[in-house]
Amino acid sequence: MITLSSDFGSPYPAAMRGVILQRTDTRIVDITHQFPRQDVRTAAFWLREIVPWFPSAVHCSVVDPGVGTDRDALVGSVGDHQFVAPDNGLVVPTVEYLAEQDNVTPQWYAVQWDSPASSTFHGRDIFAPVAAEVHQQSLSDLVADGLLVETAPTTELSFPDPKIESQQVIGEVLVVDGFGNAVTNIPGDLLSPPATVEVNDMTVPFRQSFAHVPVGDPLVTVGSHGNFELAVNQGRGDQTFDTTVGDRVVVRW
Amino acid sequence: MITLSSDFGSPYPAAMRGVILQRTDTRIVDITHQFPRQDVRTAAFWLREIVPWFPSAVHCSVVDPGVGTDRDALVGSVGDHQFVAPDNGLVVPTVEYLAEQDNVTPQWYAVQWDSPASSTFHGRDIFAPVAAEVHQQSLSDLVADGLLVETAPTTELSFPDPKIESQQVIGEVLVVDGFGNAVTNIPGDLLSPPATVEVNDMTVPFRQSFAHVPVGDPLVTVGSHGNFELAVNQGRGDQTFDTTVGDRVVVRW
Amino acid sequence: MITLSSDFGSPYPAAMRGVILQRTDTRIVDITHQFPRQDVRTAAFWLREIVPWFPSAVHCSVVDPGVGTDRDALVGSVGDHQFVAPDNGLVVPTVEYLAEQDNVTPQWYAVQWDSPASSTFHGRDIFAPVAAEVHQQSLSDLVADGLLVETAPTTELSFPDPKIESQQVIGEVLVVDGFGNAVTNIPGDLLSPPATVEVNDMTVPFRQSFAHVPVGDPLVTVGSHGNFELAVNQGRGDQTFDTTVGDRVVVRW
Repeated sequence: MITLSSDFGSPYPAAMRGVILQRTDTRIVDITHQFPRQDVRTAAFWLREIVPWFPSAVHCSVVDPGVGTDRDALVGSVGDHQFVAPDNGLVVPTVEYLAEQDNVTPQWYAVQWDSPASSTFHGRDIFAPVAAEVHQQSLSDLVADGLLVETAPTTELSFPDPKIESQQVIGEVLVVDGFGNAVTNIPGDLLSPPATVEVNDMTVPFRQSFAHVPVGDPLVTVGSHGNFELAVNQGRGDQTFDTTVGDRVVVRW
Repeated sequence: MITLSSDFGSPYPAAMRGVILQRTDTRIVDITHQFPRQDVRTAAFWLREIVPWFPSAVHCSVVDPGVGTDRDALVGSVGDHQFVAPDNGLVVPTVEYLAEQDNVTPQWYAVQWDSPASSTFHGRDIFAPVAAEVHQQSLSDLVADGLLVETAPTTELSFPDPKIESQQVIGEVLVVDGFGNAVTNIPGDLLSPPATVEVNDMTVPFRQSFAHVPVGDPLVTVGSHGNFELAVNQGRGDQTFDTTVGDRVVVRW
Repeated sequence: MITLSSDFGSPYPAAMRGVILQRTDTRIVDITHQFPRQDVRTAAFWLREIVPWFPSAVHCSVVDPGVGTDRDALVGSVGDHQFVAPDNGLVVPTVEYLAEQDNVTPQWYAVQWDSPASSTFHGRDIFAPVAAEVHQQSLSDLVADGLLVETAPTTELSFPDPKIESQQVIGEVLVVDGFGNAVTNIPGDLLSPPATVEVNDMTVPFRQSFAHVPVGDPLVTVGSHGNFELAVNQGRGDQTFDTTVGDRVVVRW
């Protein structure tokens, strides 16, 4: 199984599918091609949330504002999962999460690509064919063939921890999802739920899920990633809380 | 085969794919994840239009504004099709349509879910794993295991019939599709096509298809669902007819 | 393998998937369903860019403003690829490209469709079932069965060549991709890259890829299709160059 993810929208991912299908008839599963364009950080967050739900696979992920520069193409291996991605931090949080979960050490390789490639679409010309190779052969064979050379990622990427005080947490918005829920870095198990919390000076109910407040009302809930989420029942939390990615979130109770 | 449909957009459906692929290697087919958010009624319309074109499958469908409340997760079985969906009417019109078509009685079950689950993403935590179980085992085994208990849906959902008079029909717009065609509840075989009809006081041609009027001109045609559709050749019918879902449509001839 | 492509967005393509899966369990690969609506020319460009990356397949493609008129449904065969599409030029550039590449003569057939079909959704009612038939049977059998009759496309579709002069090229924008890159018809191997070029009186760097200029700066690069592309690093070239599909592009150096 090979998963694909990118910020390519349409129709570029189809060329990646074709390139892979020229080399293997394995299952191809799209994670998404709607990552916000050029936004490595948001894509890294979602990959860490989603990839751990998959069985063993090669994950080919491309959000790559540095395409055509000398940044490396990387292959990362951790447990049953391999990753093929640019060296810009994109898959680092996912690999670190899986490594910690399985208590294993990840291996990283730089791709030595000698074949012709465009300067602007390495998804098609490098990442997709490398993903097919990684799927079809062992990493040790690919090292022996000279396609891969052991390395370490040069770009780290991590998400900030919130600052937890006695009756207050200072966190930040990590992403806003398509529903408008503003996902924070504040862990949901931080407090035994009070009836209300104060978020950036708005006092709002803290509830188990959206429909526990009237339609259109704001709330704080613990989202599916386990963190506090600023939400509105059947509405957009980002708008009502007037917040977006990177904004500070102060929760008091 | 398991079909997936939801209003989740991106990237949440990928987690559902992963969860299913952990449990079965059957084919997964996306119906869509672009249902209008929280709009159970529109999704129910499209499911009834699309699912009957599929061969035998488990259909996992989630548009679920009540996630995390005490609404049940349902499994419905009719002929060769099984459905896994929230008890909010979402799959009811489809199940009723298939039951009538095949002249069979549907069976409904409530899911007894004991495993951990988030409060906000039952697509990933309940509906997807249940769909995999329903695909892998017989419903009678799942009843014996205690996962399913016979029930009946608590929420009905149906679409209104038009009011048909001698030279006039009073119907309503059921959905607007992505092209802007306003799909009504007025059956296309109602009248032997006159040259023109009067729709909400606009007199427009009644034609076999869009390109039978000049580009940009309005028309009424019989859409692929068999109903009257308010359309514009290469344009948006909803805008030209100034209409949207739920609006009254009076057709005179 | 059957590929699907269209301007249908959501959820209509799901009905095509169902219809095909009723007839064959082959792999279905989506190229895209996000072609700009009714825009045969742009879709034809992208198909020519993407289909040649695929292995042997039946390509079912529908952008069809003339649905329900007397335009034919065509089957085209070239090398290992078959195409099922309306006779409006949609797949002509792809078929011609593959014919030239493989030095073979394409065969074209008109579909003789006798079964019931809606007037507005031939994707579901004609193109999808024909694609399944073409996948399951030989073309000569389908001719013998009377489903196909030899023909030639009535609609040509081609992209203009640029006018190349000594220190100047006059081309045009063929498409704008989702990133906002304006893809021209000017071949990238036209000139050994000068440091700067003048595009419509803007003097901009000519670079190997986007990130070779500062974020937000314009550039000309050679895109993955091999042509000049008017781009902005992490921005939209179409906006900065104030250009769109069909616009004249004058490059001087």
